[in-house]
Amino acid sequence: MPVNSKEHDACKKSLLAVKDALDVISSKWKLQIIFAIWAGNKRFKDIERQIGGISPRMLSKELKDLEEHKLIVRKVYDTQPVTIEYTATPHAETLKELVDKLRTWGIKHRKAVFGK
Amino acid sequence: MPVNSKEHDACKKSLLAVKDALDVISSKWKLQIIFAIWAGNKRFKDIERQIGGISPRMLSKELKDLEEHKLIVRKVYDTQPVTIEYTATPHAETLKELVDKLRTWGIKHRKAVFGK
Repeated sequence: MPVNSKEHDACKKSLLAVKDALDVISSKWKLQIIFAIWAGNKRFKDIERQIGGISPRMLSKELKDLEEHKLIVRKVYDTQPVTIEYTATPHAETLKELVDKLRTWGIKHRKAVFGK
Repeated sequence: MPVNSKEHDACKKSLLAVKDALDVISSKWKLQIIFAIWAGNKRFKDIERQIGGISPRMLSKELKDLEEHKLIVRKVYDTQPVTIEYTATPHAETLKELVDKLRTWGIKHRKAVFGK
C-alpha cells in the first residue's frame, strides 16, 4: 500500500513530539528535581538533600538541562557570597496534568494486570 | 518538618504508578509494537517487518512482556502449520489517550523551547 507522504510526515512529527515529552518525563532525575523545587527547595544543596543519591555533577548537568528546556529558571543574587536560586517556570506547571495522567493510567494498569 | 507516614506511603504509591506507566510508554519497542498491531499486523513476521530494526529475539521478548502486561493477546490456531496471531486488548486502548496527552504536551513544549 503506497504511503501518503504528507500523512507520513505528520506521523513522524507526532512521534517526535511524544519523544520530546518522554525525554523530560522518563529521565531518571528530571521530574524528581522539578518536584523538589515545587516542594520549596530553591538552593542547590537543598535540592541535592531532598532527592538523595544524585551526585553534584549530575544535579548540575540536569539543572542546566532543565533550564534549557525552560522548565526552571536560575537566578543569581548579588549577595556576599553570591546566592543562586532555582524556581520552576509556569511552563513546568503544564507537566502536572501529564504526570497526573500517567499516574491514573499506572493505577488502572496495575489493576488490569494484578487485579489490585 | 515531620513527614506524615500515611502521606509518604501515598506519595510512594503514586510514584510507583507513574513508574509503571513509564515502563510501558518509554520502552524503545513496546509502543511501536502495539501501534504495529493496531495497524493490522497480526503475525510475528508482519510485526517485525512493520517496525524494522528489531531483532526476532527482542521482538519475541517484548511480545511476551506485552502479553504479561495484558496489552496484547497471543492466539494459537490449530492449522497445519500452526498459525499464531497477536491482537491488542481493550486495555491497550486506554494507552491511546495517554499517548495523545504526551504528544500534545510535546508539541506545546517544543513551542515553549524553540518558539515553533
